[in-house]
Amino acid sequence: MMTDRMKQQFQFIIEIDKLKTIFRQSYLIDGERKENDAEHSWYLAMLAITFEEYAAEPVDLLRVIKLVLIHDLVEIDAGDTFVYDVAGNATKKARETAAAERIFPLLPADQAAEIRALWDEFEEAATPEAKFANALDRIAPMLMNYESGGMTWKEHHTTMNAVLKRNHQTIIDGAPQLWHYIEDMLSKAVREEMLIEVL
Amino acid sequence: MMTDRMKQQFQFIIEIDKLKTIFRQSYLIDGERKENDAEHSWYLAMLAITFEEYAAEPVDLLRVIKLVLIHDLVEIDAGDTFVYDVAGNATKKARETAAAERIFPLLPADQAAEIRALWDEFEEAATPEAKFANALDRIAPMLMNYESGGMTWKEHHTTMNAVLKRNHQTIIDGAPQLWHYIEDMLSKAVREEMLIEVL
Repeated sequence: MMTDRMKQQFQFIIEIDKLKTIFRQSYLIDGERKENDAEHSWYLAMLAITFEEYAAEPVDLLRVIKLVLIHDLVEIDAGDTFVYDVAGNATKKARETAAAERIFPLLPADQAAEIRALWDEFEEAATPEAKFANALDRIAPMLMNYESGGMTWKEHHTTMNAVLKRNHQTIIDGAPQLWHYIEDMLSKAVREEMLIEVL
Repeated sequence: MMTDRMKQQFQFIIEIDKLKTIFRQSYLIDGERKENDAEHSWYLAMLAITFEEYAAEPVDLLRVIKLVLIHDLVEIDAGDTFVYDVAGNATKKARETAAAERIFPLLPADQAAEIRALWDEFEEAATPEAKFANALDRIAPMLMNYESGGMTWKEHHTTMNAVLKRNHQTIIDGAPQLWHYIEDMLSKAVREEMLIEVL
């Protein structure tokens, strides 16, 4: 039997197809185009599966994956806010909260509450799962950027200091061992003139 | 410390970025472009979370999500084989197996074995998790097709019989209650001249 509950669930699924049309600043590794939020969310889930053993504390992998799969849904309405966009970041929280209040309640109330709790958990970055998820969310774009030849860094004349300030603590908090790989990669990025080292 | 194990894991993550460049036959719901495999995999994971209660048998949701996240990785080498491409489908299994044997062993052996087992499980569609995952893999493109106005069906002059033959049993096996929604949707697709009804 087709219930109202099921119809609501399908309406949510139809709505979130739009995440595939929200583009980020990061280029794909092949450099051909920028990445969208749906691909990004899949990629983080693959990082979570692959790197689970490096989480700062033992994690519930299912919840980590749910966190990364849903963390950008609010951007369907709010758009991707570039990390160095001061004006955009001033209104980001309000725009994203409004989006959460429109999109999640397309689901039946119990599921809307679960997804809202997951989104809040990711944003607060306080649980082991959310810390690990946030660390992965910082690692993926840096990795893609380096592997693409530093395209986004070069476009924005990014400095090593800015990259460290934005990413170091979050990665240390969520996946400290992975910092060794990232640190080495960033040193190479400076040597290879993808990133500006400010002395 | 950065170990060889960690380097292998990063090499796998770098490699699978390519899944974002493998395009399918399905259009996004907005009709603007076709969908790629990474987006598709994210979408199936969201269907798994949303529709878990309709699985034919109780499922381990984490394993369902892993199945759908990795099920198309082999298409990085083998490409997307259109369901009605007879020549392509004759060589599909061999091409995909060769891809699995190249891509998965980029990972450390324990993780390569896990992902190979997951891929085999999806392909065999025998466990409750794989049956549910396969049902979702059939539901998503039909839903997107209908919501986009039947673009792929119209392009290929698809008949209701062909759609039923390809999808009905798989959905009944994995998520039988969801068939009620799909059946209703397909009837509308015929009435709205998106699908050809063969009498």
